[in-house]
Amino acid sequence: MASAEDIKNTVASYMKAISGKSADAVAALFAEGATVEDPVGTEPKRGVEEIRSFFTAIESMDQTAELLTIRVAGNSAAFHFRVTTKAGDQTYVVEPIDVMTFDDDAKITSTRAYWAQEDMTVS
Amino acid sequence: MASAEDIKNTVASYMKAISGKSADAVAALFAEGATVEDPVGTEPKRGVEEIRSFFTAIESMDQTAELLTIRVAGNSAAFHFRVTTKAGDQTYVVEPIDVMTFDDDAKITSTRAYWAQEDMTVS
Repeated sequence: MASAEDIKNTVASYMKAISGKSADAVAALFAEGATVEDPVGTEPKRGVEEIRSFFTAIESMDQTAELLTIRVAGNSAAFHFRVTTKAGDQTYVVEPIDVMTFDDDAKITSTRAYWAQEDMTVS
Repeated sequence: MASAEDIKNTVASYMKAISGKSADAVAALFAEGATVEDPVGTEPKRGVEEIRSFFTAIESMDQTAELLTIRVAGNSAAFHFRVTTKAGDQTYVVEPIDVMTFDDDAKITSTRAYWAQEDMTVS
């Protein structure tokens, strides 16, 4: 099983990859056959290629991701983070809670993102 | 499906029931056949009676629970909360992230609690 430290490192890399606007860097953190359900209740993306496609949206965004809190239990992590997106004069902030599972190499095997459109703030 | 408001009300009642030291009040929030995996990676408690037994531990504790953040998506909620326990001269604080699912009546059908012993602070 991946250690808590390895799992935290993967989540830190995930924040960095989002802030770095690289769908390839995000996709590289996922295991083959991984799923992403974002937000929870929608149809999951399945497999690294579909996940990479989903994350290409970040490449054209002025966006940063910042970890607020993380809890690791077994091969899973739950974490609260802040995504700040600037578009023109406006700043959009959303702070989801994500739950991820990890394989023995601390690659992400699933993501479930808990947030709703009404949680987003605009300033 | 339960509304986001109903789900948030159940979570608020859960905080109140823990702070009120009533295993019965906690158990009453769960649906028949519900499961509690606390922490994630341990064998789940199954059914209201097992859940009630698990929560009898709170009845002898000087403990309060306080909601920090909640995100609702579909019939699920993820939330970060603080449990403060006083025992003698010491104060133990743990801030888990829990994920719950809910039935149409906003009764809890499952709880998965993400935290580890090393997340606990003692002062």
